[in-house]
Amino acid sequence: MENKRIGNQTVKLTNPIYINSTYSIVGPKESEGPLAKYFDNSVQDAFYGEQSWEKAESKFCLSSINGCIAKSKIPVSDFEYILAGDLLNQCTSSSFAIRETNIPFIGLFGACSTIIEGLAVGSMLIDGGMANNIVCSTSSHFCSAEKQFRFPLELGNQRAPSSQWTVTGSASAIISNKGNGPKITHTTIGKIVDMGITDANNMGAAMAPAAINTLKAHFEDTGRKPDYYDLIVTGDLGYIGHQIVIDSLKADDYDLNNNYTDCGILIFDKEKQDTHSGGSGCACCGTVLAGYLFNKLQNKEINKLLIVGTGALMNATTCQQSESIPGIAHAIAIEN
Amino acid sequence: MENKRIGNQTVKLTNPIYINSTYSIVGPKESEGPLAKYFDNSVQDAFYGEQSWEKAESKFCLSSINGCIAKSKIPVSDFEYILAGDLLNQCTSSSFAIRETNIPFIGLFGACSTIIEGLAVGSMLIDGGMANNIVCSTSSHFCSAEKQFRFPLELGNQRAPSSQWTVTGSASAIISNKGNGPKITHTTIGKIVDMGITDANNMGAAMAPAAINTLKAHFEDTGRKPDYYDLIVTGDLGYIGHQIVIDSLKADDYDLNNNYTDCGILIFDKEKQDTHSGGSGCACCGTVLAGYLFNKLQNKEINKLLIVGTGALMNATTCQQSESIPGIAHAIAIEN
Repeated sequence: MENKRIGNQTVKLTNPIYINSTYSIVGPKESEGPLAKYFDNSVQDAFYGEQSWEKAESKFCLSSINGCIAKSKIPVSDFEYILAGDLLNQCTSSSFAIRETNIPFIGLFGACSTIIEGLAVGSMLIDGGMANNIVCSTSSHFCSAEKQFRFPLELGNQRAPSSQWTVTGSASAIISNKGNGPKITHTTIGKIVDMGITDANNMGAAMAPAAINTLKAHFEDTGRKPDYYDLIVTGDLGYIGHQIVIDSLKADDYDLNNNYTDCGILIFDKEKQDTHSGGSGCACCGTVLAGYLFNKLQNKEINKLLIVGTGALMNATTCQQSESIPGIAHAIAIEN
Repeated sequence: MENKRIGNQTVKLTNPIYINSTYSIVGPKESEGPLAKYFDNSVQDAFYGEQSWEKAESKFCLSSINGCIAKSKIPVSDFEYILAGDLLNQCTSSSFAIRETNIPFIGLFGACSTIIEGLAVGSMLIDGGMANNIVCSTSSHFCSAEKQFRFPLELGNQRAPSSQWTVTGSASAIISNKGNGPKITHTTIGKIVDMGITDANNMGAAMAPAAINTLKAHFEDTGRKPDYYDLIVTGDLGYIGHQIVIDSLKADDYDLNNNYTDCGILIFDKEKQDTHSGGSGCACCGTVLAGYLFNKLQNKEINKLLIVGTGALMNATTCQQSESIPGIAHAIAIEN
């Protein structure tokens, strides 16, 4: 069989893997942010007509899956797999949404890196001849995440300056071995990196080392420099993690000052929206990619994009048991 | 590219994907059961020397990963991916174990189907030329699972006759494009099936419909009848789910009376160990495959095995919100 690996962590796909369509749906706060016009749909009720935040999150997820499939014009029966996961315990936002579809399900857990993990694994499955069309999806919800990972919302707890705001919404993307438009060309699956950060209100700092590790692996494996890409975007490092990545990679002679940003920075207005260090959550990287970035790719304002999904792999119990926060980051290169 | 799909849900791998080695480690109860002699290691202390059940479960996981890599004689640097997941919230048993390795990590969530999901996705990645060697791993722990999904152990809650006993332990398996011995030949990724069971103490009944769905898909896709296989094994349906599968497939003219069993039935002694409907948990299917079944394959007592991992995709919150329990099942065929 043909070996598609280059370097230590990267796969160079040998067939064009097209991003056929994307769909993004967000909650009220995101629909007031600077990217509002790029999202396919927004919902002003955080409960989305449901009786709990968890049910609402799952409804966001189903809406984005169905919306994306409708946009793709591919019949549901032509999808071999749906790859999805989310932040709710046991990824129930995804599974309760996907039970309403009739598509074989490969469940993922990559925390906030999930949409990129899905697109990476999915594009490798298509490139290997295992599937023709795959849906990748993820979701998050500010209220369900705060409740599950931090404090009851009713407590009205004060937020730390380093904290980030979990994006409410869901994103889906459909990849296919036929079509036109932006193509996934490379995947770089990351290693878990844990530099000992224990503060669950400083996720950017906890995840940045994993992003640095994966970016370096991608540059070394491909022989590319940061300036090969029109834009490099991390998932949800926010302002603090973004600066750590710039500073750390500068020490390794990778200059990210000119073409690097972060979905957590893009999605909210720093001055007006009071989200402190920026956005986070599975839907942060998901909706910014499916909304804003995919639009820029389609319009050819960006032609070479490196996007790095970042995830923090802790839970409420590990924090209570004083464990540090392991991070992960997966990258895909997308080109027109 | 070559299309490797047959039927609606099955991939027929075109290259031999060898199961190079397996490793199983179990807790005290499993080491008193009928399969004790097949496990690589057993630990008599449920805390495994740690200060919490969660940390113990993660140590089980790391022990099985390291044990499996040592048995394989493949250098750690030659593994492109580790595919793993577990039942703890946000799969922290796996991620806290894997941060100690230096292998790129693809996180999965398939509940108790995880080891089969990992072997299925992993063998497709190898078959596609994306990797040469992959570790698949999973774990579960009776105490951490009871605490997280049901009641505090200290409550000494009475167990329902339909309840199953979460297996304490971890299993790993290494798959490779070189070697000899048992080979994975087909993967059948399942759909989520939810028949409305709401009783978290009757997981066998909740998961059986998904197993039935995946078994039927596998038989239809491959044109095989149950008697093609020396043995068909489901993951952790226990006595109740096992009988549901036999009865339901009989109505579709598939006779599973002669060569079908379940890991949850095999792992504990029904008369002596008081586990009611049998074993469950990610480590149930994992350790029975890595221990007992892999031994039978290597000794050629079994030459054609169909193993179907089964998972219940609920969490404690969905149960409290009166949701039913979605099930999933993934199958792989293994032949000498």
